[in-house]
Amino acid sequence: MSSKQIKRLTIIGVGLIGGSLARALREKGLVDEVVGCGRSLDNLQRAQELGVIDRYCLSPAEAVQGADMVVLAMPVSSTASVYAAMQAGLDADAIVTDVGSTKGSVIDDLRKQLGVLPANFVPGHPIAGTENSGVDAAFAELFVQRRVILTPQSETSAQALSIVRKLWECVGASVIEMDAEHHDEVLAATSHLPHLLAYSLVDTLATMEESREIFGFAAGGFRDFTRIASSSPEMWADIVLANRQALLPVADRFIYDIQSLKQAIADGDREQVMAVFTRAKTERDRFAALVGRFAQPGDTE
Amino acid sequence: MSSKQIKRLTIIGVGLIGGSLARALREKGLVDEVVGCGRSLDNLQRAQELGVIDRYCLSPAEAVQGADMVVLAMPVSSTASVYAAMQAGLDADAIVTDVGSTKGSVIDDLRKQLGVLPANFVPGHPIAGTENSGVDAAFAELFVQRRVILTPQSETSAQALSIVRKLWECVGASVIEMDAEHHDEVLAATSHLPHLLAYSLVDTLATMEESREIFGFAAGGFRDFTRIASSSPEMWADIVLANRQALLPVADRFIYDIQSLKQAIADGDREQVMAVFTRAKTERDRFAALVGRFAQPGDTE
Repeated sequence: MSSKQIKRLTIIGVGLIGGSLARALREKGLVDEVVGCGRSLDNLQRAQELGVIDRYCLSPAEAVQGADMVVLAMPVSSTASVYAAMQAGLDADAIVTDVGSTKGSVIDDLRKQLGVLPANFVPGHPIAGTENSGVDAAFAELFVQRRVILTPQSETSAQALSIVRKLWECVGASVIEMDAEHHDEVLAATSHLPHLLAYSLVDTLATMEESREIFGFAAGGFRDFTRIASSSPEMWADIVLANRQALLPVADRFIYDIQSLKQAIADGDREQVMAVFTRAKTERDRFAALVGRFAQPGDTE
Repeated sequence: MSSKQIKRLTIIGVGLIGGSLARALREKGLVDEVVGCGRSLDNLQRAQELGVIDRYCLSPAEAVQGADMVVLAMPVSSTASVYAAMQAGLDADAIVTDVGSTKGSVIDDLRKQLGVLPANFVPGHPIAGTENSGVDAAFAELFVQRRVILTPQSETSAQALSIVRKLWECVGASVIEMDAEHHDEVLAATSHLPHLLAYSLVDTLATMEESREIFGFAAGGFRDFTRIASSSPEMWADIVLANRQALLPVADRFIYDIQSLKQAIADGDREQVMAVFTRAKTERDRFAALVGRFAQPGDTE
């Protein structure tokens, strides 16, 4: 593709992320034609109806024909098999990128599935999203002032990397390159573990006898704390399983810490409880002062 | 006091809750004079400057002189000792209520400290608040469409109960009566445990080597999940310790569940992970549909 204009963009998985990227590129006049692909005909019809895509194919190999840019925006565990399925139709110089929340697993799966990691594939992850999923939730401004992490490998062509970087910068994001393993550790801590805790807490309360009443008296703190538990179970089951190598150590660390804190409460150890709460508040306030630059109300990742 | 007009309202602890109640009653023209009391002279001067109180005393016994309504809005562990300190100045027919997040501990402490539970004392808890504390954060609309739980005891006079109920209804809240023990269980699950988890998670991440970078890449999901970790450490250390009897069993239950979920991830048990995430999402979505009626953006409890 030219670094300025995409002639044919194929989005495989036209949901919140894929749909928002298509909308953003279209709004900026940076794409001539958008082709959608996915498993659900209803969703593709809806995407066309909304003007997010121009047309669609159910077959990945057909969908990518003549595309100069292909974006893979499906659950991480499907990425490699979809890549394999589309390869027959893919132009030799087409650039491919993904938006998966885990990077090590996607890269490993591709190496296994394809034998090699294609030079024109740039592994990526926009730190953007909301708890809503599906193409109806897509909007062009999703990536404005957000970060996109790219994790190029030794196989990745410098030109492909540079084009994908521009793609994200054009829709308002700031792009950072990072080691894939490090990406997975950082995201395990800041995103995957919080999702785990939110899902787990809501489930714990839901299975208690008095759950109806419990939820009836929950207020805004609870609502915000558990908002991410409204995210797609399929997508998140996929993420936590794909990233378990990075997630389990930080989950263990958290479980150890919450047990210590619980013991301090049982022992009436006010000093210890205050130490934890005070450190946490200091850090959280510092984070809140920073985050304005990169996050907007209502977004997750 | 008359059921319609408070002649002199004394607020002990002029922070977010006490200050907001004073502001709301004043805006409705329901109070002639507001007297503030607290440990911090600076805060009382600020409250007077902001017009939240008319005057202040540092001595609780002086502050309550001639008051027909007294609101105790300090950390729960101080309530009984402040009650004892103010008693010498308290009119025989003055109504007293509190706003503490735990009810069993406040009632027990008062019985121990005073020998009896005063008939004119109505234990209460407005399910309202934000992560901001202090009189500067106070605003008159804080209680509009929010719930207030009152936990009257056998000693509580029906007249005092009825007056405190009206007080909260006048500022826009809906009032529910509940058994104190039950209140503590419900709030342990929906409020105290989430605060514990949020503080603990932020502390876990803050003590990791790469903490600076971790927080640098956190986004909106993390921000909302941890918002309650910006709450006052003093107030929340007090609450979790005062309510440990109700909090520890639900914390144990959660720890058991998160360990099982972690094991399911380690085992690659997608079915189990999906079961938890799906139950949680269903319950969270149901809750989100309900909560609009009782909670507003930015509030906690």
